[in-house]
Amino acid sequence: MRKTLDFLLHHWISVGQLLLRPRFAEHSLETFASVLDTCERIAREKFAPFNRLSDTQEPHFDGQRVHLPEATHAALAAYVESGMLAAAQDHDIGGMQLPCVIEMAANAFFHKGSIAMGGYAMLTSGNANLMMAHGTPKQREVFARRLFAGQWFGTMCLSEPQAGSSLSDLATRAVPDGEDFEADPLGPRYRLKGHKMWISAGEHEITENIVHLVLAKIPLADGSTVPGTKGISLFIVPKQRVSAEGELTGERNDVALAGLNHKLGYRGTTNTLLNFGEHGGAVGYRVGQPGEGLRCMFHMMNEARIGVGLGAVMLGFAGYEASLDYARQRPQGRPMTVGGKDASSPQVPIIRHADVKRMLLAQKSYVEGGLALELYCARLVDELHTGDERAARDAGLLLEVLTPIAKSWPSEWCLEANSLAIQVHGGYGYTRDFPVEQHWRDNRLNMIHEGTHGIQGLDLLGRKVRMHDGAAFKLLAARMQSTVKAALPHEVLAGPARQLQMALQTLESATRAAWMHGQPDEALANATPYLQAFGHVVLAWLWLDVAAVCCARLADAAGDEAALQGHLAAMRYFYAYELPKIDAWLLAVASRQSVCRDMQDDWF
Amino acid sequence: MRKTLDFLLHHWISVGQLLLRPRFAEHSLETFASVLDTCERIAREKFAPFNRLSDTQEPHFDGQRVHLPEATHAALAAYVESGMLAAAQDHDIGGMQLPCVIEMAANAFFHKGSIAMGGYAMLTSGNANLMMAHGTPKQREVFARRLFAGQWFGTMCLSEPQAGSSLSDLATRAVPDGEDFEADPLGPRYRLKGHKMWISAGEHEITENIVHLVLAKIPLADGSTVPGTKGISLFIVPKQRVSAEGELTGERNDVALAGLNHKLGYRGTTNTLLNFGEHGGAVGYRVGQPGEGLRCMFHMMNEARIGVGLGAVMLGFAGYEASLDYARQRPQGRPMTVGGKDASSPQVPIIRHADVKRMLLAQKSYVEGGLALELYCARLVDELHTGDERAARDAGLLLEVLTPIAKSWPSEWCLEANSLAIQVHGGYGYTRDFPVEQHWRDNRLNMIHEGTHGIQGLDLLGRKVRMHDGAAFKLLAARMQSTVKAALPHEVLAGPARQLQMALQTLESATRAAWMHGQPDEALANATPYLQAFGHVVLAWLWLDVAAVCCARLADAAGDEAALQGHLAAMRYFYAYELPKIDAWLLAVASRQSVCRDMQDDWF
Repeated sequence: MRKTLDFLLHHWISVGQLLLRPRFAEHSLETFASVLDTCERIAREKFAPFNRLSDTQEPHFDGQRVHLPEATHAALAAYVESGMLAAAQDHDIGGMQLPCVIEMAANAFFHKGSIAMGGYAMLTSGNANLMMAHGTPKQREVFARRLFAGQWFGTMCLSEPQAGSSLSDLATRAVPDGEDFEADPLGPRYRLKGHKMWISAGEHEITENIVHLVLAKIPLADGSTVPGTKGISLFIVPKQRVSAEGELTGERNDVALAGLNHKLGYRGTTNTLLNFGEHGGAVGYRVGQPGEGLRCMFHMMNEARIGVGLGAVMLGFAGYEASLDYARQRPQGRPMTVGGKDASSPQVPIIRHADVKRMLLAQKSYVEGGLALELYCARLVDELHTGDERAARDAGLLLEVLTPIAKSWPSEWCLEANSLAIQVHGGYGYTRDFPVEQHWRDNRLNMIHEGTHGIQGLDLLGRKVRMHDGAAFKLLAARMQSTVKAALPHEVLAGPARQLQMALQTLESATRAAWMHGQPDEALANATPYLQAFGHVVLAWLWLDVAAVCCARLADAAGDEAALQGHLAAMRYFYAYELPKIDAWLLAVASRQSVCRDMQDDWF
Repeated sequence: MRKTLDFLLHHWISVGQLLLRPRFAEHSLETFASVLDTCERIAREKFAPFNRLSDTQEPHFDGQRVHLPEATHAALAAYVESGMLAAAQDHDIGGMQLPCVIEMAANAFFHKGSIAMGGYAMLTSGNANLMMAHGTPKQREVFARRLFAGQWFGTMCLSEPQAGSSLSDLATRAVPDGEDFEADPLGPRYRLKGHKMWISAGEHEITENIVHLVLAKIPLADGSTVPGTKGISLFIVPKQRVSAEGELTGERNDVALAGLNHKLGYRGTTNTLLNFGEHGGAVGYRVGQPGEGLRCMFHMMNEARIGVGLGAVMLGFAGYEASLDYARQRPQGRPMTVGGKDASSPQVPIIRHADVKRMLLAQKSYVEGGLALELYCARLVDELHTGDERAARDAGLLLEVLTPIAKSWPSEWCLEANSLAIQVHGGYGYTRDFPVEQHWRDNRLNMIHEGTHGIQGLDLLGRKVRMHDGAAFKLLAARMQSTVKAALPHEVLAGPARQLQMALQTLESATRAAWMHGQPDEALANATPYLQAFGHVVLAWLWLDVAAVCCARLADAAGDEAALQGHLAAMRYFYAYELPKIDAWLLAVASRQSVCRDMQDDWF
């Protein structure tokens, strides 16, 4: 994986160019490599060997405390030690001021080593990053700094038992805490009451405190709340009360663990139902303005969703490498020839069978393509933050339209990769003696959290491709066209380039056809197949773009020839077996197929 | 499920016609219904409520004995009590002489209630059925009768740690046991040595004895064995030694549990590694002639593979019903309109959202279509056994070509149904508080055992569609054409009928193109996508055939209109969203796409 990562970072994404920007001027290719080396080593030593343990010894609540394996504590101590929690933050608050793309690349090793053990850290930086963007100087100093230092860990509390995808139905309420509620140095002080569901890392004893970021509604004077998402505000609710200087007061806040969720996978991350305010109200400090909670939260959504996508990719990568290794070792069967099989010849390693190669190549095309997608998006985040005005605007537009893909595509296809990894192992893959079944279970979460697959489809077809008069989609299409143009002259790329051009036309015309009557119910009934097709077109584009770099390097006799040939083969696989799938999906979209929305409850 | 099952059995399969045949003359529609009622009740009372328990309390070995939950013992006692072990056997050996299609339909309830608990029974009848076909009268009397009576249970011992898909590499050996080895009343007596892997129900204390059917090679005079599958023979190896009268002698045979496999799912069925002959050799009695072991085993393969497919379908059905129920109860979100959503209106049950309907309709099309497929195949088995000469010959041909589909298609698509059932449940589906995650885990086995997906593809494209100069495929195509012809005049069926006709042409021409050069390596490199496409065409055909019955009944105002509309909607779903997928698969087949077989080991 490291080799592919380095190839993509240096020869495709060209991270070296970022060094020219003032923000990254103190870095060098060597410091980037050193961050990757460190993370790769920690993940290999402290995460991967205990990934199975984090599954079999899932978090357990004894009525007083939640217990996690000692290995989880040790792994996270090493993560904190690495400084990665503040990887992208400014030097002057103790950060490494790394580009987002390097931060993501470095975190990839932890996702691959143990997605569930890494979860605590990812949530903590996400939480602190949000406070850096929207918190007061005091909130940043007291909370964000301690989060970045790993002294406290953080959570994101959005869902409730009755409100998952529909955040407008949040029932948690926050009322001003006393007349002087606005005078608290930590921010306007409220009392919160409600229940928060699916809260990852919601309880543990890895750190002395847990900082919950909680969405809740502030009631109006008559006690009612504003319907919809406009009524939602954001609050910092620490598990242990803290003084204005950030010292623990010794008083426990009114937040209680109501129960642990017992999951199919991802078991190493505690997942909780939390009760806020069973005894009068949990103290919370508002972040941002009343009613702006969701906007604050969504500020971080792009990065969170890229993170989910990257996690899905890395689970896929872990399975791919495990099954590749197995396929090289496992003897079974013989080549089939016109004369049949020669049963007296020795068995061959299964990697010699075409169908096994197919399963490995499919995985390779999914996981390497997925990695390219996530790195591309992370690079756009860097452009958004450090590019010139035009570049930042374009990056913002592209991120809008690519984020649903970055989140959903690997969730679906790297899960499929995990299934293929099991299949390559045969019966052994179905046992808990091999890692691949856990990857598959762990990865199944990714189509559900951070906005389900269905929600991503609605976001893409309902909003993103239409926003600013379709500007984001047009810009993306222009990028694709320029990849096509660059690829056409290459002999081995001309075919795929023409295929991509046609695929893009089909996608564009299906988009128009879906909205022909401007009826959301009509268009959006096929939002999920649209999402699938859009994702495959994006991946085909990225593969073609990567392949162009491979061809250039092969022509220069630069780089590892076998590895470059491997990437080209994965690209060919994608164009031969995957891209043609879009026609079936877009047929339903373009015809505004109505069988689903016409379906009646009593017909089921 | 019962309603759909009854509809398919009576109005589509026309089981009533079987009553005209002498073998089933003592039956009536009432006795058929009564068998189904009984099995449905036992499955509901004794299997389904304990399915989760059989997973969480998976079999455990204390060094002496394997422990299973008491519920498993009770469930199987009730199964034995029902007489279903000998459902299809002759009256005069205590059987019910039921048609295969009724036996399969009745067993469907157990698969749905708890696939893993039911596993012991399915293996036992499979084992005994094989002995009825190939055993001596004495073997049938001593072993098969006790298996049918549920006094002993059975297993099938094919795989070994080093030989899974490649049975020609079996290393278990059987040597004649003494000069008089042929004089044993239980059959020619051998001593077996070797290791058998993945043996389901290989150890338990549900019954006083376990009858293993074991494949092994008889060494030649020089100690060598015949390479390939031709050298394989079949043996009865009881766990406890038995006398010629079938009494337990009190002596344990030389068969030992080497270990339990700990699986991803299907945990309620013990799965074992067995050592034969650690202390001199396990006593085994040969069934059939030397070297004919695999032929004997394959005699039962059609039914075993239909059984696996039916199990996969029923896991899909269980998930479909659970998610349908959930979707009707769970309020979340609001309809999207041109003016957006009205956040002040109450939430609606999620079944009102088009994307949820899509996920339910997809499941419906997979599981009802899959059920139709398995019933159709079971009906062919009846035709094979009780039809006239021509009908039996045709049924045999159709079974050859349809068996790989009956096994593989539901393994893939009803697994997808299980994934959609999780998705409908959102976060709740990912917890172990709901049944759907277990269905998904359990179902993942079905693409692996009884011949992997890859093996089914090779069997289909490499053998079945080419055998007897393509006679089986031609016959199947003719059946499809006659369904098309009957459907064309119906207004609502004409479109799908034309679509099927084109799909069949594409499939036929891809088959020819794959074999254009007669090169197995070239053709078979795409055997799996071929299998997928073939399966989808078969399912489209069955759906059209079922839909024609629905139309006829709607025209007659007969039957439950809502249910009939539901089947028609599932058919439309399949034609709109599923059948178009074949073009992508067949593109690779027809172009003899070589990217997979050209792939080099060092390019990965």
